[in-house]
Amino acid sequence: MDERETAGKPVRCKAAVARKAGEPLVIEEIIVAPPNPREVRIQIICTSLCHSDVTFWKMKDPPGYFPRIFGHEAIGVVETVGENVDEVIEGDIVIPTFMSDCGECTDCRSKKSNLCSKLPFKVFPWMPRYETSRFTDLKGEVLYHFLSVSSFSEYTVVDVAHVTKVDPAVPPNRACLLSCGVSTGVGAAWRTANVETGSTIVIFGLGAIGLAVAEGARLCGATRIIGVDVNPAKFEIGKTFGVTDFVNSGNCGNKPVSQVIKEMTDGGADYCFECVGLASLVEEAFSCCRKGWGKTIVLGVDKPGSLLSFTSYEVLHSGKSLMGSLFGGLKAKSDIPILLKRYMNKELQLDEFVTHEVRFEDINKAFDLLIDGKCLRCVIWMNK
Amino acid sequence: MDERETAGKPVRCKAAVARKAGEPLVIEEIIVAPPNPREVRIQIICTSLCHSDVTFWKMKDPPGYFPRIFGHEAIGVVETVGENVDEVIEGDIVIPTFMSDCGECTDCRSKKSNLCSKLPFKVFPWMPRYETSRFTDLKGEVLYHFLSVSSFSEYTVVDVAHVTKVDPAVPPNRACLLSCGVSTGVGAAWRTANVETGSTIVIFGLGAIGLAVAEGARLCGATRIIGVDVNPAKFEIGKTFGVTDFVNSGNCGNKPVSQVIKEMTDGGADYCFECVGLASLVEEAFSCCRKGWGKTIVLGVDKPGSLLSFTSYEVLHSGKSLMGSLFGGLKAKSDIPILLKRYMNKELQLDEFVTHEVRFEDINKAFDLLIDGKCLRCVIWMNK
Repeated sequence: MDERETAGKPVRCKAAVARKAGEPLVIEEIIVAPPNPREVRIQIICTSLCHSDVTFWKMKDPPGYFPRIFGHEAIGVVETVGENVDEVIEGDIVIPTFMSDCGECTDCRSKKSNLCSKLPFKVFPWMPRYETSRFTDLKGEVLYHFLSVSSFSEYTVVDVAHVTKVDPAVPPNRACLLSCGVSTGVGAAWRTANVETGSTIVIFGLGAIGLAVAEGARLCGATRIIGVDVNPAKFEIGKTFGVTDFVNSGNCGNKPVSQVIKEMTDGGADYCFECVGLASLVEEAFSCCRKGWGKTIVLGVDKPGSLLSFTSYEVLHSGKSLMGSLFGGLKAKSDIPILLKRYMNKELQLDEFVTHEVRFEDINKAFDLLIDGKCLRCVIWMNK
Repeated sequence: MDERETAGKPVRCKAAVARKAGEPLVIEEIIVAPPNPREVRIQIICTSLCHSDVTFWKMKDPPGYFPRIFGHEAIGVVETVGENVDEVIEGDIVIPTFMSDCGECTDCRSKKSNLCSKLPFKVFPWMPRYETSRFTDLKGEVLYHFLSVSSFSEYTVVDVAHVTKVDPAVPPNRACLLSCGVSTGVGAAWRTANVETGSTIVIFGLGAIGLAVAEGARLCGATRIIGVDVNPAKFEIGKTFGVTDFVNSGNCGNKPVSQVIKEMTDGGADYCFECVGLASLVEEAFSCCRKGWGKTIVLGVDKPGSLLSFTSYEVLHSGKSLMGSLFGGLKAKSDIPILLKRYMNKELQLDEFVTHEVRFEDINKAFDLLIDGKCLRCVIWMNK
């Protein structure tokens, strides 16, 4: 499609629409409205599947909404800019992110926070600034957005606070990974925990996020990276990303994992990362981080309402700290370009995360691969 | 008593012995053995009463032990040094502390921890290195120690890892406050939280510890210090230590305190300190510290087994952190001298904490005053 023909007008294109919870996506034609002020319309180059897509795709009830266009790890080219957009122009290569970086609010101006107050992170089915949709199907029915990105469509509209302009020299099937998962893990080690050189770290859960934590910790100079998983095959994959030791949490006998790790580390690890999303594992992580300075970083989120519990004695007397990490504590617009540069300098490994690539019409294969635990990241090409 | 007569021998002196839980202390003569290797015997100059003394004095069952010599905030002069002690000599003025600073273990050598691994903090009734007592009464019955200090005695024996040599120019009835309570509060703001200039802080509980947090935060340049207490009279006292705003937690109507504070601070405070020892207040503190960077510091300890609970969503999505602070994160031997110097430079306020002074024979008055909430610190002079 010629951009000159589409710019500023509603565009008809293909999208993978989730019509019902848990049912295969349907590739169909939809209408994508032009961007509102402070929004941009992006032609997606490629997108990858993240576990959060699957989690919400399975949800029958709110915050599950249907029909919906999922996808939130992607890269694309700006096709139309709305009014009052000066950060990017048509033709720019951009990465959309589920986290906003408005650059104006107290949080975005502070070095300490990545939680934009102007367009705060919300799990809701609309464009963030207007709470409306830019998608309709050919019958005129509104399609819901997902995490302010909705990249399972040839065209999508994203708020300008949610896009980061990137170097077009980076291969798109690598750059797109920094849109969510890899950034979340690498950032948790780099920005949230600020892992020190020579540290010992423990990672609970060696999925893509956990492996990205390992990669981030390796980049920060951690010398011992202990992976914990129920699947020993993950250790082999983990070695690529710097994992030095493995604990099979399904095979610790009568000992809690935390005790095994305390014994391995002469008292506890400097940093523990919980990437599974189980409150009980957060408690294990807190337990096996070292007294005096150990930090426990929570990346996974358990079921709504699940509680993390610690004795007040344990917190008071341990000198340990507990913190959460959303999007790895990264500020998208400043930190994604740094990570891409480190990739181009052959410091940050991204290639190894891409285990599969499929064409857009095969998007449901990506779901199958991820659900079956057969892939780290499956890149979905929109036009190949 | 002439030191030359006592040095190296058992010494007979007066002590305030707690014979039974909750019953007035009895001034009686006891025998204090000479120090073992790596211990020193100290002639106490003055001591002050801290809430922990009262808490353990009330305990009928372990970790309550009787007969016992309480007291752990004090200053004294070294009267005899045991073998292998080279840090101090006879005649040095020293502050004993319940926390060890051995200078040799991984923690003591690290800048990040104040939790000595060699003589770790334990609530037990013996000398820390030998697990024996240096006290007997005139009938030969062993008297228990308290928190490695036991300063309610004219002479006591303390491990050299638990004493800090200090400038003899500092008035003893000021210096002794740094032995526990004031250090705990000031250190929590200074060392544990590392309060930034211009910050907003909230303190739950304006007892001596909470007021010391205010003093520490004021020293660090906090511009807004909100005190929370059920007693509005605490606000007047608090103003001396930099408290700028007061919330009467017993008078918030239907609103949780955290909501009141979020409204006062446009979203939350930079640092919240829980100094009461109630798990529910830690949760309120966590709730009203600011998203993105807010830190909650736990100083108070609730009943054994009491749980702090947070939703995993709240931790993950908040960018907040939670940490404990024992002895304010201070390393006794290096940090107490810094604080004393700041007192001598008229930066740190100590005078205002001393609301009462009594003679040793009136030590039970100090208990009454503290229990009735009538004093911040009551200094007990051994020989006045």
